[in-house]
Order: sequence, then structure tokens, then C-alpha cells
Amino acid sequence: MAVYTEVTDSDVAAFVAEYDLGEVVSLKGIAEGVENSNYLLSTTTGNYILTLYEKRVRREDLPYFLALMDHLSDRGIPCPTPVHGRDGEALRELCGRPAAIVTFLQGLWPKRVTAEHCRLLGGALARMHVAGRDFPMYRPNNLSVEGWRKLLESCDGRGDEVMPGLTEELEREVGVLEQAWPGDLPQGVIHADLFPDNVFFQGDRLSGFIDFYFACNDFFAYDLAICLNAWCFEPDDSFNATKARALLQSYCSVRPFSDEEMAALPLLARGSALRFLLTRLFDWLNHPPGAYVEPKDPVEYLKKLRFHRDVRGPAAYGLG
Amino acid sequence: MAVYTEVTDSDVAAFVAEYDLGEVVSLKGIAEGVENSNYLLSTTTGNYILTLYEKRVRREDLPYFLALMDHLSDRGIPCPTPVHGRDGEALRELCGRPAAIVTFLQGLWPKRVTAEHCRLLGGALARMHVAGRDFPMYRPNNLSVEGWRKLLESCDGRGDEVMPGLTEELEREVGVLEQAWPGDLPQGVIHADLFPDNVFFQGDRLSGFIDFYFACNDFFAYDLAICLNAWCFEPDDSFNATKARALLQSYCSVRPFSDEEMAALPLLARGSALRFLLTRLFDWLNHPPGAYVEPKDPVEYLKKLRFHRDVRGPAAYGLG
Repeated sequence: MAVYTEVTDSDVAAFVAEYDLGEVVSLKGIAEGVENSNYLLSTTTGNYILTLYEKRVRREDLPYFLALMDHLSDRGIPCPTPVHGRDGEALRELCGRPAAIVTFLQGLWPKRVTAEHCRLLGGALARMHVAGRDFPMYRPNNLSVEGWRKLLESCDGRGDEVMPGLTEELEREVGVLEQAWPGDLPQGVIHADLFPDNVFFQGDRLSGFIDFYFACNDFFAYDLAICLNAWCFEPDDSFNATKARALLQSYCSVRPFSDEEMAALPLLARGSALRFLLTRLFDWLNHPPGAYVEPKDPVEYLKKLRFHRDVRGPAAYGLG
Repeated sequence: MAVYTEVTDSDVAAFVAEYDLGEVVSLKGIAEGVENSNYLLSTTTGNYILTLYEKRVRREDLPYFLALMDHLSDRGIPCPTPVHGRDGEALRELCGRPAAIVTFLQGLWPKRVTAEHCRLLGGALARMHVAGRDFPMYRPNNLSVEGWRKLLESCDGRGDEVMPGLTEELEREVGVLEQAWPGDLPQGVIHADLFPDNVFFQGDRLSGFIDFYFACNDFFAYDLAICLNAWCFEPDDSFNATKARALLQSYCSVRPFSDEEMAALPLLARGSALRFLLTRLFDWLNHPPGAYVEPKDPVEYLKKLRFHRDVRGPAAYGLG
């Protein structure tokens, strides 16, 4: 679940009174998302999402995330729009935590991903990348190649508790990727966490992107690499090339890949697998017993990493 | 959290198509309630609650609960109203589980209970009892005095794992209460689980009761005894007689207690404390490690039980 902070009725009434949103009708904790406390807030003017930012999100990053959602919404990218209070501020404090209200997005995230979902995702993601080009703020990707060695070190060599030999394999991977990582590719604002539960669909259209709290400036193709891992593997860890092709072709029909991006894709996908493997490994080793959130299996991402390591070129993804 | 069953987008679309509710706009798991999976369902006609009944609720009891909500709604008691499908049925199946859609109730449950909440609760509860008088169905209270010995036995003598001497104290209590339990008091349909998270307030009014899945036929005063335990103790386990008086006086202003009910109240409160102590103890001893739902502390209810054991008469609750 994802309600770490309990908000009382009087707290929420006082908070909502800062906005032109009418009266509070209902407030229900949402059992999705793992980083923050999310509430579905109903007022006399409609449904909204109230988010309390918990300790994993750095307070100084919040203006970037909120301004980005404003920027993308303005350019027609379907995503939650921060609601600004009467004082013009979108970010304020509730129960001792930074908090914001955003608009409610229609649609459901796909529990079973189809190639059609991937096709819709590819085009919409390309449009998001294009729309973010003139976003004036900058946030580095702390979870890309420069951060991996430190992340691995924070696991204290305990990787073998999950699988014998894991620590050694990860050390080798970090070394290889640090050497081979591309220095320059087309870049801009990326979402950086586009798992299926962050993309809503309604009927036959993609209705929106949510959860921009990992967004940062990095290679556009790295966002695609994350999607390849999150959308194109089956529950048995096999790779579905039809979905990959649908994702990439539809992306390229809006924003064509350069030859360099195309060539870098297997390496970026391998790196993206390593990134989620490392954070999952850390969470696995450090989650308190009985915690609300079940840690995700790091080994799933080891299998994905190995798949991409064996890929010889972008043709494996249906490209080129 | 309380989402045990994941519902896919196509499942929910097919399910909602059985009703005159328009198109599905959104479906979000709610992080409240511990027995069933609850979703906030938004459609083009409004907000609803979709509940999938999990294993703790017996399928054969569901018609009682749903018919009761219909009955009480018809009589103006604010509670969720089951939505009937085009075939007239309110109860159908979703993802292999019994499932129903009910109307969305405005309001928030009080995280900090005040005497005014207790006053509003008392009157509304009395009206609910009166409104349920001509409800034609019957369901025994399996969690009242006849069930306690079996419940204690199912804890396998492991009570002392929670507190030394607990098993012996509970055996003595069960014996005393079996002997002393009243044979006849005014009775009818009771809610039987009226904790603050099952009662919504909006502004200065009580806006509704939810979660009728323990409702049954039993002494009316036993429902009050449950409320005394759930609403009138402070977080430090001290008893707040002002809240108790507000609760009981306001109840009696709508449906006056008989002398027998008045005299039985300390014993009923002691029994109600034992009932929640026993189910909490069972859950405490049997919850799987890493389970989503944090088991509640049984000792809280031992303290309440001991308080009522020392009460000499209803004056302790501000009555008489």
C-alpha cells in the first residue's frame, strides 16, 4: 500500500481551503505507488489526487517535477496537472510533509500488456520527449551510470544472499558499462520510470502518464530502454520482440532515432536493467520485516540484463 | 492495504457493462479495510465502490448484508446502497470472487474522535436500530458469547506468547461471561463493527455508515458496548467518560434503554472487549510474516476488558 502519512479530516479541510476547489467530500488512501502517500480527494468540484511526498523524494527536486507536469500539460501531453492554490503555489505542506494536489487522470493501467499498448506508448512517449525540449529546468539522472558503483557499494557485498556470484557479476557489469556508456546522444527530459502502472489507457487510447518523480535530463533513448525492460518481457522472462518492435517503430514514426541511438540501444537496455536490478537489490536487502510494501524480485532484472548482454544489435528489438 | 485481488481493465469493463452505470473512467485500489478488496470505481455517471469479497466473508452471508443495506437506505439511514445490474442482481462474480458495486458515500472517518462525533454516532445508531426492526432476514452473531470458547481454543494456548498469563485470564473470562451473559434483551439488526473508520462525517453531520459485513441479529445494547470500546478510549487506553455519556445519552434520546439494558451494559462492554481481544489474538498469532496488513495489538483490548470488569454500574459510563 502507499499511505504512510495519515491525514485527519481537519488537516485536509484546512489544506483544501487554500485552493478554489470547493468543499472536501471524501478522502481515500490509494493502494498503489510505493514512494509517496497518495489519496483520492473528492471535492464538490470533482476528483483530484493529493500526494504527500515521503522521505525518498528530495524536497529540492519537487519544483522540477511539478513544473514539468505543468509544462507538459500546457503542450497537450496527457498527465496530471498541478493545481495551484489561491496564492499561486502548487507545492505546500501537509502533516509535516511537502504536498500537492494534481488533477485526476482518467483511465486504467494495463495489468496485461499487449503489443497495441506498446504501440500507443511509443508514439506518446516520443511526443512527450518533443514537448519537453524547451523545458527550462535541469535535473541530472542520479540513477544512471555515474550512480551505479555507489549503489552497488551500498549493498555491502551482500548480493550473494540473493544469488551466489551476484556481487561479482554486478561488479563486472558496472565496470563494463562505465567504460562503454555513450558520451553523447540526443537528450532532454525523460520520465525514467515508465512501468505499466504509470501509464493509463482508456478504450483504444493512451489517456495519460503519471508519477513523474524520477523524471530527469538524460538520453531520450534511455527512456525507451527502460520501456523495453518494463513492457516487452513476458511473465516467464522471455522477450517479446513483437511488442518491442511496436514500441520502437511507433516512437520512431514521431521522433526518428539517429544511427547512434539505434546502435546504442542494446547497451542502454543493459544499463537500464542494471539500474533497476541495483535498486531492487538494495530494497531487497534493506526492507524492514513486515513492511507494507513487498520488495520486488531483483533476479527478474538480472535475467533481463543477461538477455541484452547477448544481443548483437538493434535488429533483436525489431529495428534496423 | 486492502487489495487482495487484481482486477484487469477488460475484467472491470465487462463487469460494469452489466449495469446502467456508463463507461469505466478509472479504478483505484483503496488502502483501507482489511477483509475485502475495495476499489474506487469512477464511471461516466459518478463514483462508486467496487468490492470483491475475499475468503473471510462467507458467500452465503452476502445476501443478508446487501439486502440490509438496501433496507436501511430505503428507510433513510445513510449507508452505501447496492447497485443492481440490468438483471436486477446486486451480487455477481468478478475474478472468481463474489463482487458488488455500492454507491459512494460522502464524508471522512474521524482520525481523532471528539465527544461531538460520539453524540452524532449515538443518535444515528439508534435510528439504524429502529430502521432495522422490520428487516426480515436473520443472521446469528457468530462472534458473540457462544463463539468465544472455540475462538480461544483456536489460539492453541499460545496467548502467553503475547503476554504471560494471558491464556489463563482469557479462560477465566470466557467462563464468567458464559455464565453471566444476559439471556434476553431488546434485539434486532446490529452493525457489530462500528469502529471510527466505518463511520463518515461531513462538516457537522454524520454522513454515513459503511462496512456492514459483520452485521447480524443480536442485542441492540451490544452494538453500543462495541462503540464504547471503539470510540471512548484515548490513545493511552484511558476511558473518556464525557464521550461515553455523549454516545449513550444521544442514543437513548432516540431509543431509550430499558432498565435491563442499562444494568447489562458493563457486562456487554466486557464481552465486546473480549470478542475483539480474541480475534486480534488469533490474527496476531497467525498472520503470515511480511503480510500486507499489520495485525492489531490484542493487549489494547485486554486493558479495555479489565476496565469494564472493574466497573460497578452504568454510572461509570455517564448513565443512570
